[in-house]
Amino acid sequence: MNRNIKVGVAQINSHVGAIDYNLKKIIKFIKLGKRKKIDLLCFPELSLVGYPPEDLVLSKNFLKNVKLAVKKIENIDKKISYIIGYPKLIGSKVYNVAGVFINGKLAFEYKKINLPNYGVFDEQRYFSKGDTPLVFKFKGRTLCLTICEDIWSDFKVVSNLKSPDLLINLSASPYSSDKEADRIKLLTSISKRNNMEVVYSNLIGGQDELVFDGGSLILDSKGNIISKAKKFEEDFLVMNMIFEKKYKNITFRQSKKDKLSSILSALSLGLRDYVLKNNFSKVVIGISGGIDSALVAAIAVKALGRRNVLGIAMPTEFNSKLSHDLASELSHNLGFTLKTSPIQEVFENNLLLLRDSVYGKSSFDETEENLQARIRANILMATSNKLGCLLLATGNKSEISMGYSTLYGDAAGGIAILKDIPKILVYKLAKFYNSCNPKNIIPKKIISRPASAELRMNQKDSDSLPPYKVLDKILELYIEKGLEVGEICSITKIKRSLVVDVVNKVNMNEFKRRQGPPGVKITSKAFGRDRRYPITNGFKEA
Amino acid sequence: MNRNIKVGVAQINSHVGAIDYNLKKIIKFIKLGKRKKIDLLCFPELSLVGYPPEDLVLSKNFLKNVKLAVKKIENIDKKISYIIGYPKLIGSKVYNVAGVFINGKLAFEYKKINLPNYGVFDEQRYFSKGDTPLVFKFKGRTLCLTICEDIWSDFKVVSNLKSPDLLINLSASPYSSDKEADRIKLLTSISKRNNMEVVYSNLIGGQDELVFDGGSLILDSKGNIISKAKKFEEDFLVMNMIFEKKYKNITFRQSKKDKLSSILSALSLGLRDYVLKNNFSKVVIGISGGIDSALVAAIAVKALGRRNVLGIAMPTEFNSKLSHDLASELSHNLGFTLKTSPIQEVFENNLLLLRDSVYGKSSFDETEENLQARIRANILMATSNKLGCLLLATGNKSEISMGYSTLYGDAAGGIAILKDIPKILVYKLAKFYNSCNPKNIIPKKIISRPASAELRMNQKDSDSLPPYKVLDKILELYIEKGLEVGEICSITKIKRSLVVDVVNKVNMNEFKRRQGPPGVKITSKAFGRDRRYPITNGFKEA
Repeated sequence: MNRNIKVGVAQINSHVGAIDYNLKKIIKFIKLGKRKKIDLLCFPELSLVGYPPEDLVLSKNFLKNVKLAVKKIENIDKKISYIIGYPKLIGSKVYNVAGVFINGKLAFEYKKINLPNYGVFDEQRYFSKGDTPLVFKFKGRTLCLTICEDIWSDFKVVSNLKSPDLLINLSASPYSSDKEADRIKLLTSISKRNNMEVVYSNLIGGQDELVFDGGSLILDSKGNIISKAKKFEEDFLVMNMIFEKKYKNITFRQSKKDKLSSILSALSLGLRDYVLKNNFSKVVIGISGGIDSALVAAIAVKALGRRNVLGIAMPTEFNSKLSHDLASELSHNLGFTLKTSPIQEVFENNLLLLRDSVYGKSSFDETEENLQARIRANILMATSNKLGCLLLATGNKSEISMGYSTLYGDAAGGIAILKDIPKILVYKLAKFYNSCNPKNIIPKKIISRPASAELRMNQKDSDSLPPYKVLDKILELYIEKGLEVGEICSITKIKRSLVVDVVNKVNMNEFKRRQGPPGVKITSKAFGRDRRYPITNGFKEA
Repeated sequence: MNRNIKVGVAQINSHVGAIDYNLKKIIKFIKLGKRKKIDLLCFPELSLVGYPPEDLVLSKNFLKNVKLAVKKIENIDKKISYIIGYPKLIGSKVYNVAGVFINGKLAFEYKKINLPNYGVFDEQRYFSKGDTPLVFKFKGRTLCLTICEDIWSDFKVVSNLKSPDLLINLSASPYSSDKEADRIKLLTSISKRNNMEVVYSNLIGGQDELVFDGGSLILDSKGNIISKAKKFEEDFLVMNMIFEKKYKNITFRQSKKDKLSSILSALSLGLRDYVLKNNFSKVVIGISGGIDSALVAAIAVKALGRRNVLGIAMPTEFNSKLSHDLASELSHNLGFTLKTSPIQEVFENNLLLLRDSVYGKSSFDETEENLQARIRANILMATSNKLGCLLLATGNKSEISMGYSTLYGDAAGGIAILKDIPKILVYKLAKFYNSCNPKNIIPKKIISRPASAELRMNQKDSDSLPPYKVLDKILELYIEKGLEVGEICSITKIKRSLVVDVVNKVNMNEFKRRQGPPGVKITSKAFGRDRRYPITNGFKEA
């Protein structure tokens, strides 16, 4: 008896809620698997409904539709077996289930045991906990099936069992830039410790604040990677598992360059899926001649094509000629259309109106700065409404942390793809982007000039913010690493008063972020569902 | 031996995160209790930190500050005992704790067992589950201590015990308009079934999307209410529990009028606390001459005083003279200042600019409607920035459900107090408000005229939306009752195509709501943390 198993991983891009669309894709991959003579094809976690389905799971009608789709999954083909994730109502409880279809027939349903309820995850809001590991025989081998968190937070699920031959894990593991290394470390250690092969099937695609990076893996029983799927793309892995055999390993090491490249891919996929899955095809961006809008434009062109990107420059008297020249050069290099809509006159009309009708003559302060940003948002949103393009916000994580942005102004947009990218990383990504292309597509001057919002004469970011090197360090330690003021001071030697000021500003500006667009999570702690702070908050650091 | 217990309930308004502020308040109430010769004083759940503290609980420094405050609570007075709620780090786990201070000394700490993780609640994100009920002797009586959800979701906690004499429950139970009746029913049944007295100590105050209504209760062992605290105000209950005695009951029945009155109080408290706890005192409102802004102005005047309310009317050619007259009459009746800032010229300037620079001449569509709303938002936000007043958004739940509002336009504001109030209820509240006051403060014409956004000639809400009576019924059944399309059709006999259209519009407009301001929850299902839908969502009803 041949006890080899030809395993496949269908690394698909599911669309949250679009059950029929996902079902079609699943059928297509099963048929492909059949042609490739695969014995067992593994799809990602909840692949029939996308991840995270959020409160859709509370809808009986949604679950009924899922049930109908599961029925259709049976008997697609009797010559192949497959494992697919979906939510399932059993009695009055909903479970995060992986259905094992042996020769096209639903043979087992495994209920996820470890339900993550931290960070971006709310699974205990939706699902009841399973309590029984699933170990089953397949072609004479012992297989153990797990879902995502099962192997992350509590490995007892597997380790209490007599060691199976093969561990399968269906995942919907959101990307963050340091996570792949953790994932590989974990899978390697599980494989080694239990002396078993591992198949790890991960989702890809963007969904609101999250992007799933794929990178599905197959490991031999010594913890070596023997097959690895593409990242940020749909892919199909095939591996003939011969078990006792020594496979050819793949070496894996992430360089600094790979990290930047994968962040750009994450932003690009996150953007593309947000735009397309929300039935847009075109985007509009306010192009200032600064670094943030330049990087957003470059990513948008990569994700959607230059013909689907429209830039608008909206100068006032505070914008230098250099800014406009750089904006033009950028649009020329990237090949997108740039229109110019000077807002000085509308700005002055607004000032006069406010002076005459509301608050009289007054000195120039943040009010007038915000007003310019909001007039620009109006121009951009009118363009979005009239031409049917989605507005992209251009703010970065450093600004958004400190509230150094205008609510309903530059903060406006359908998605803010740099929301989780600190300013220093914006520069690195821009340089890296240029290094991957034949000439300096993002003009060098855009990267080298001092950052400025140009909302008053000779304004510089450094008038209002600490140097970005210092600021980003504090923000990383506070937000991403979760360190306290004292710890940050002792690690960085930065003055306590500055650290305190930054930390308090982060928390005081929750009101702006609560009304900001979603962004793509790329760090270990992003704003949004990942970090839930009260707006009304009397806790101050001192 | 006198086995009576003089029990007190300190129904306080805690400020989330403001540990020192809350501590001072707690000390003040303990001293008051001492003067009233109270034996045992009960504070609400997590009263030391406010509810919900959200991700503050993940900060070690925050927990350290809580710990220091708990130390200070000890020995405030040795002649009185008290029970206070706070989060506590034990090992690596955080618990939702109630500390029992017997004669000023921390004697027991009860760890909450049932952690709600549905609706607005995320307690399993923050807290580990306790596993031991707390039953303790006090003045010869047996007392059982519980925290909020303990008695709601799983009553075994109490019922497995040999019946204690007195059940104490510390709560932070958010208001919704039908909840008080449920609360009383629950407490009554617990009291009766176990033949025990009950002390129920609830929080009051507004916190972002939530308002806590207080209404703390003391019940005798037959389930009769023998003492009841005020609603929406701090209060102090005192009751000499003689146990075997028959007390004088309080009859309690909520009339329709009480319901409207309590909703107005909830909105008023929610608004006041949001404004004051965020260090504002004044608000600005766009006054259109319509019902929504009229009701918001009336509530703002009630909550903050007329001198702290500024109205701005911002007419274009589409606004009738009647609208302006009614806005003036309203401001006169309520006594707040109304300024007029006509935006027609700025609107035309914007149209010209867009025509010349971005998209050429084009027909008048939603773009131009939205543009007017966004120009108004700019005027209002400039006023907010310059004069330091918080902008109040005026949208109601019916509009917000359907996306019948302009993002960054009329949707803009620090808080949207009508966010959870359907349009028909807006009318009812306006009429009820008038009925409580000597003359028609909200001009009758504002209530009787057809609803219109006045963003084009002769526009009416009914051009774009089903009649509000029909719409609100569908929305209530779908959003609040969680019914499916089929169920809604069979209950209401409304055409399926209309129900489907409404339900799909609700879900398609999640992108607007995600960027909207918080509002005060008053129904069983509000938008915001209470209802977490994906923006990118391929699920469509058919």
